[in-house]
Amino acid sequence: MKILGIDPGYAILGYGLVEMNGSRFALCDYGTVTTEAGTGIADRLKRLYAQLMDVIEQQDPDVAAIEELFFNSNAKTAILVGQARGAAILACANSGLKIYEYTPLQVKQALTGYGRADKMQVQVMVQTILRLKEIPRPDDAADALAAAICHGNSAVCHSRMEKVRGL
Amino acid sequence: MKILGIDPGYAILGYGLVEMNGSRFALCDYGTVTTEAGTGIADRLKRLYAQLMDVIEQQDPDVAAIEELFFNSNAKTAILVGQARGAAILACANSGLKIYEYTPLQVKQALTGYGRADKMQVQVMVQTILRLKEIPRPDDAADALAAAICHGNSAVCHSRMEKVRGL
Repeated sequence: MKILGIDPGYAILGYGLVEMNGSRFALCDYGTVTTEAGTGIADRLKRLYAQLMDVIEQQDPDVAAIEELFFNSNAKTAILVGQARGAAILACANSGLKIYEYTPLQVKQALTGYGRADKMQVQVMVQTILRLKEIPRPDDAADALAAAICHGNSAVCHSRMEKVRGL
Repeated sequence: MKILGIDPGYAILGYGLVEMNGSRFALCDYGTVTTEAGTGIADRLKRLYAQLMDVIEQQDPDVAAIEELFFNSNAKTAILVGQARGAAILACANSGLKIYEYTPLQVKQALTGYGRADKMQVQVMVQTILRLKEIPRPDDAADALAAAICHGNSAVCHSRMEKVRGL
């Protein structure tokens, strides 16, 4: 199963692709799509959508995983990032990909077994699980890979549960 | 000039199309795209995007106008509506339409000449300007028509300014 992880953002959107065989993960690709401040919103969303469509076409993942957004304040920022997240979800949906959403807590727990893990602990786990020499940069790409791995682990759990239940 | 106005929303998105000749407006079409609560977010965004694309293809507007969103609180709602707004903007951008954004204040001023006008005053002006027997329903469609008329009036103002300036 090839999983596309997405860390949604407006100025920078991270993506990461992992292949999962059994419970073993291998890195396929990761990167970012960036949009320039000062460019109109329509052009920025169009770019996010088109570039992510290109990644999906080239990498042909089976499924996508995206982190849920949480904001304590600043509804203005929330709207902007919401728009970018909408563009990312649409690129997946219009490519026929099923999308799974995970909370930051679920991603942290899936990667480190600990819901209050900090950003660095999660990234070290991404590096370890994918057997990389360095932590993927920038953070947005590492976070996208974490979401992909989170989905992979959740999928394994679900399938084990189904076996246990005899489903 | 045919203008598509959009009132972005997640459960219900309003749209309205007006044709502007000189400073006179005529109604072309209006309606809503609705998405069902309980449906996954990807399917809801996909529906908003696809239905709006259909409207654009059928009506072939020259330009689009969309209201800016303001929220005082509740970032969770802001993210959801932001996602829907992103889908609407993308449908316009991917159809090659240029999109203009207007604040609620600008829309109210353009329709009634008064920035603190209430919703009903704006809707009565929509009815009057378009010479309709009744106020268009639901509110979302009337608000979309208001955004379209706002753009038309702004465009007239800009073109008059350009004449005055000898541009």
